Amino acid sequence: MIYIELTARQEEIIEIVKENEPITSEQIADKLNLSRAALRPDLAILTMAGILEARPRVGYFYSGKSVMNFISEYIKKIKVKDVKRVPVVVQENTSVYDAIVTLFLEDTGTLFVMDEEGYLAGVVSRKDLLKIAIGNMDIHKVPVGIIMTRMPNIITVGPEDTVYQAAKKIVEHEVDALPVIIPVKKEGDTTSKYKIVGKITKTNITKIFVELGNY
Amino acid sequence: MIYIELTARQEEIIEIVKENEPITSEQIADKLNLSRAALRPDLAILTMAGILEARPRVGYFYSGKSVMNFISEYIKKIKVKDVKRVPVVVQENTSVYDAIVTLFLEDTGTLFVMDEEGYLAGVVSRKDLLKIAIGNMDIHKVPVGIIMTRMPNIITVGPEDTVYQAAKKIVEHEVDALPVIIPVKKEGDTTSKYKIVGKITKTNITKIFVELGNY
Repeated sequence: MIYIELTARQEEIIEIVKENEPITSEQIADKLNLSRAALRPDLAILTMAGILEARPRVGYFYSGKSVMNFISEYIKKIKVKDVKRVPVVVQENTSVYDAIVTLFLEDTGTLFVMDEEGYLAGVVSRKDLLKIAIGNMDIHKVPVGIIMTRMPNIITVGPEDTVYQAAKKIVEHEVDALPVIIPVKKEGDTTSKYKIVGKITKTNITKIFVELGNY
Repeated sequence: MIYIELTARQEEIIEIVKENEPITSEQIADKLNLSRAALRPDLAILTMAGILEARPRVGYFYSGKSVMNFISEYIKKIKVKDVKRVPVVVQENTSVYDAIVTLFLEDTGTLFVMDEEGYLAGVVSRKDLLKIAIGNMDIHKVPVGIIMTRMPNIITVGPEDTVYQAAKKIVEHEVDALPVIIPVKKEGDTTSKYKIVGKITKTNITKIFVELGNY
């Protein structure tokens, strides 16, 4: 893909087509006091860019496509598997106190909880921990398994999903991080279990935003 | 601005110029087994897009410009003042307990602390609160003024700065949110005070990312 800064005349042509579609090249040339030959390169560029559509024996139409479509297309090409990060994991029987210590030691914002077989069991946020920390429970005794959000209430994303889809889920469900999971179905099981292979966070997305601006 | 999907031949021309610059149109035509006339529209497009540079009597050069420059330019146009959100504010003498309650009631992640005159005094994160909550202090008695990050250690941003600059600060300093501030210098003061007029957060930037993808 390439981009081209439109000339004043090209912008004018777009405006003329917008207001008069369908319009022939003769009619456009007339309005601009130009010959058809002089107009030809501009019409070629605008058609190639998909901004104008030429229909034989009818004339030119405005396609409505804008440069924003391009940014959108680019953003939707970034996949979860290409930017996911390593999740910090604790066990279901880890105490709330130890979970909080892990949060500080690992310098992270969300903890993912595994069951005994190593499958995703739950997610614990800073606010989940804060709520318990100011309550009346003994945080050295209460296990995170009791306070975590558990399946099927966890909002998740797959490695082949786009970061755009992940960002949408983060915004819609007001969470800080999503586990990246792969479903595993063992013989005889009626429901899937989930292996956690990464995480996508708001920090992640903020970093991508900075990288896009760095070019 | 418009964008154009490059044809296979145009991509090939770019590669030829990259490897052989400066190179004349005759030489490019030779390598592709084409006539100069057949090559002319492609060279016109690539030059207009700024990908190739034509120097008279020398030949074509590769400019190194890519489509990513465009995304970057677009992202750098978004200003803090256009996307900033309303900050949740507490007073310096608010207790840590009341601050935590405010965090839940207002559904926010970072609290901004004001001094008695209404100027920015500090910032308190979920982790600052969590650290105190599991310590030995009485959270009903300790005021947030004691645990907050205070000026000049607060990372801030101005309304005229770009969201790109804000995102960079968020990533570099590993914080969740920045206060948007305006310096105020009263007569006789040697140092400025800061009015807080908004906040920029990772949630903010994640939402912008989703909006860019929505087009």
